[in-house]
Amino acid sequence: MAEKTDILIIGGGPAGLVSAGTARRYYPDKRILIMKDVVNGCIPCGIPYMFWSLKNPGDNKVSLDALGKNRIEVVVDEAVKIDRVDRKVKTKSGKEYEYEKLVLALGSLPIKPPIAGIEKKGIYPIYKDMDYLAAVITNLKKAKDVLVLGGGFIGVEFADEISKIKGINVYLAEVLPHLLENSFDEDFSLLAEEKLKSKGVNLLTNSKVVEFLGKDKVEGVRFENGKEMKIDNAILGIGARPNVSLAVNAGLDMGRGKGIWVDEYMRTTDSDIFAVGDCAGKRDFYTRKDAPVMLASTATAEARIAGANLYQLKVVRENKGTIAIYSTYVDGLVLGSAGLTEKSAKNEGFEIIEGKTEGMDKHPGSLPGAGKIKVKLIFSKSSGILMGGQVSGGISAGEIINVIGMAIQQRVSITELETLQMATHPYLTSAPTMYPVVLAAQNALGKM
Amino acid sequence: MAEKTDILIIGGGPAGLVSAGTARRYYPDKRILIMKDVVNGCIPCGIPYMFWSLKNPGDNKVSLDALGKNRIEVVVDEAVKIDRVDRKVKTKSGKEYEYEKLVLALGSLPIKPPIAGIEKKGIYPIYKDMDYLAAVITNLKKAKDVLVLGGGFIGVEFADEISKIKGINVYLAEVLPHLLENSFDEDFSLLAEEKLKSKGVNLLTNSKVVEFLGKDKVEGVRFENGKEMKIDNAILGIGARPNVSLAVNAGLDMGRGKGIWVDEYMRTTDSDIFAVGDCAGKRDFYTRKDAPVMLASTATAEARIAGANLYQLKVVRENKGTIAIYSTYVDGLVLGSAGLTEKSAKNEGFEIIEGKTEGMDKHPGSLPGAGKIKVKLIFSKSSGILMGGQVSGGISAGEIINVIGMAIQQRVSITELETLQMATHPYLTSAPTMYPVVLAAQNALGKM
Repeated sequence: MAEKTDILIIGGGPAGLVSAGTARRYYPDKRILIMKDVVNGCIPCGIPYMFWSLKNPGDNKVSLDALGKNRIEVVVDEAVKIDRVDRKVKTKSGKEYEYEKLVLALGSLPIKPPIAGIEKKGIYPIYKDMDYLAAVITNLKKAKDVLVLGGGFIGVEFADEISKIKGINVYLAEVLPHLLENSFDEDFSLLAEEKLKSKGVNLLTNSKVVEFLGKDKVEGVRFENGKEMKIDNAILGIGARPNVSLAVNAGLDMGRGKGIWVDEYMRTTDSDIFAVGDCAGKRDFYTRKDAPVMLASTATAEARIAGANLYQLKVVRENKGTIAIYSTYVDGLVLGSAGLTEKSAKNEGFEIIEGKTEGMDKHPGSLPGAGKIKVKLIFSKSSGILMGGQVSGGISAGEIINVIGMAIQQRVSITELETLQMATHPYLTSAPTMYPVVLAAQNALGKM
Repeated sequence: MAEKTDILIIGGGPAGLVSAGTARRYYPDKRILIMKDVVNGCIPCGIPYMFWSLKNPGDNKVSLDALGKNRIEVVVDEAVKIDRVDRKVKTKSGKEYEYEKLVLALGSLPIKPPIAGIEKKGIYPIYKDMDYLAAVITNLKKAKDVLVLGGGFIGVEFADEISKIKGINVYLAEVLPHLLENSFDEDFSLLAEEKLKSKGVNLLTNSKVVEFLGKDKVEGVRFENGKEMKIDNAILGIGARPNVSLAVNAGLDMGRGKGIWVDEYMRTTDSDIFAVGDCAGKRDFYTRKDAPVMLASTATAEARIAGANLYQLKVVRENKGTIAIYSTYVDGLVLGSAGLTEKSAKNEGFEIIEGKTEGMDKHPGSLPGAGKIKVKLIFSKSSGILMGGQVSGGISAGEIINVIGMAIQQRVSITELETLQMATHPYLTSAPTMYPVVLAAQNALGKM
C-alpha cells in the first residue's frame, strides 16, 4: 500500500527545504513530506569552510530544526521511479509514496571530467554528504601536495581554505587564462590571483590536466604540455551537472540546456510536478538562453516560487529569468558579480558601456579597518539599463553586490542609479560624494 | 566690476562639491566657481569620529583634490546678497560675481535650543569647520563630565565616540522615551541603548534640560524635574535647521517646511537658481509632506540632479521624493533605517503589516566573526508595496539597508522581495535559506 501524502518533495538541500517551508505557509492544511537520500546533508556553500575555518565541520550540517514546528515530515530513502499516471514515487527500500504535487529538488552531481586515472584514490569530487566529506577532511589533513582542479568559485575557495592547513602545498589548475573567468572580467580575476599567490597557492592557469598518475592512489598529474607534477591528493572543483535521471526516466521534458524544463512557475511539462534548484533548467534574464547557473541562492528563490504556486498561481513572477549573482571570499578579499560581465555581454552581442570606480570603503579612508573598494557596472548603451555589475572590497562588498542585483532585477536605468538615495556612514561605506555604485554609473554616463 | 562666471555654487560641502562635479560632466565648457565661507570644511558625517577614532582629525577635511583636474575654481568668501535682476552675488569682502546659473548649497546651522545659559563657555554646537572643531577636541580631551544633548544619530555617535576618551564620564540626554526615536522602532532603539550602557554611557531618556548652570563656563545642568547634575562640557547634538537667510532675503519662496522651495529638479522659484542639500526643502516619498531629512547622502543625490539639469532638464527624476535612509554605528553595532518605521507609518495613517526576522550574518553561525542580524520590513497591507525597513547587525548591515533602500525607491512588492535573487556566501551573508530581507518579507506575507 502506498503511503499517501499531499506534497512530496524529493531532496533535502536548500531547494527542498525552502520549497517545504514555503508550501507550509501557503497551504497550511496539506501534508508535506521531504524524501532525502543522504542521512546528513550539508550546506553547499559552506563545504570549503569545513576544511579549516570551522572548528567543528559538523556545524555545516543542514539543520532540520525548523521542520518539526512547521509539520514537515522527513524520510531518508532514495526515489528510484516516478509513476506519473498513478502519481506515485517508488523508493530503493521498496516503499511507495502517493502525491498530489511533487517537487523535484534533486540537486546536481559533481562533474568528473574524462581524464585518464580520475578514479584513483585520493581524488575527491565534492558530494554534499557530511559523512563522505568528513573522511576527505581527515585525508587532506595528512596531505602534502594537493591539486585543486578548476579555477571557478569552488576551486578558488578550496585553494584559499586548504592553503591554511599547515604543511600543505596547494596547486590550483585552470584551463582558461584566468581564475573566475565565467563571472568576472580580467581586472577582477587578477585581484583573486594576486591574493591566492600571496597566500602561497601555486597558480597553474592555461593548464589542462590530461592524466592522473600513480597506481591505486594518485601520485602525480600530467598536463597537456607534457609536464608532470607530484601530488598526493586532488580536489575536483570543476562544477556540477543537473541530477535529472529520475525526471528523464519519468518522461519529463528536458530544457535546451541540461536541466529539467520548467515554466516560469517551476512547473515541468507535468503540471503536478515541479522542479527547483540545480536540477531545474534556467533561462537567462537578458537573453532567454539557457543559463548554466547553479547556486544555492538561486535554488532558494526558485523554491519560494514553487512552494507558493503548487496548487494555484499565487505569486506572480513576471518572466524575470535568472541572473547569475554570486560572491566569493579569498582571505579577506571579497568579490561579487551580478548579471553580465563586460566579456559575457560583448560575447552575447550587446552594445554596452561600462563604468568603473575605485575608492575606500570607509570615510575618511584612515578610519580603522578601511580598505579598497572597486565597482564596475555594465549598461546597455542605447537603453541605459543596468545589465551587470562586479565589486571587490571587504565584507561590505558582499551586500553591495545585492544592491546591484536588486537594481538589475528592477531594470534600473543609469540616471536612476546616478540619483540614488543611499545610506552612508564613516564606519560602513564610502563617503556620500563617493558612493561607488553611483560613481560607477556616473563614469559610464560620461561615455554615453 | 563683477567677475563673470557661468555656474556659481555657494557652499563647499558635499552638496556644493557634487553639484560642481556633476555640472562639469554635463556642461564641459562652462566656467564653474565654488564660493565657500569656511577655509577648512569637514565631511559632516565624519565629525564624531574626529574625537577618537581618527588618529589625525585633519583626515576628515573635505578634499578639494578633484576640483583642479575638473577645472572647478574655488574662492573663500561669504555671499551676503543675491541680486536676481542682474544675476549677481555680493560678498562680504566687497566683491561681485555674475552668474548664469546659481546653486545654493548653503547647508544648515546647528539648532541652539532656547535653554537658559546655553551661551556659556564649554557648550558646543557642531559647526562643520575644521578649525573650530579642533579647538573643541582639545577642550574635550581635558573634560571630566560631558553632557551630550540629543539622542538622535549625532548624539548617539558622539556619546559612543567620546566615551572612548579616558577619564570622561558621558551623559546622553534625550527628551523622548528612547534614543533614535525618529528613525527606529523601539526594538531597534533598545539595541543602541544597551550598547551605549555597556560602554558606560549614562543614558538620561525622558530628560529635558531646562538650564545650564555656572558662571562664565558651564558647571552643571538642571532638568525639568528639578534634578541638577555637575558637568564641565556639553555637546549640542539636537539637529540643525536649513541655512536660508540668503535665499529669503533674495525673495525666493520657502517651502511649507523650513527649507527653500524647490521643484523636482531642485529649481527654486527663480528657474536660474537651484538649491540643494540641507538648505533645500524636501518632500516625503510616500506623503508629499515636508520631510525633515538632512543627510549628506540625500544632499549628494540632490546635487547630482541639480548639476545635470542646470541648463536643460537632462536627467528625469519622476517625482520620487525623499526617503530617510541612514545608518549609524555604535561600537560595532550597526543600525540602518530606510523609509517609514512602523511608528511613523501608523502615525501617518498607513495600514501596514510588518515582517521581522533574526538570524546570523554568516553561515554557519559558528564561522569566525559571525554576529546577529535583525531585519524588519514595513509593507502597505493592501498594496503590498515596501514602505520601510530597519536592520541591525555588523558591518554588512550598512549595505543591507541600501538593498532595502533600492527596493523602496523601486516600489518593490512583497512577492518580488520573497522571490529575490541574491548573492549569499558563508563569510559574507546569512544562508540562502535565511537571507533576512527575504525572510522578513515572508514573515509579513504570512500576516496578510
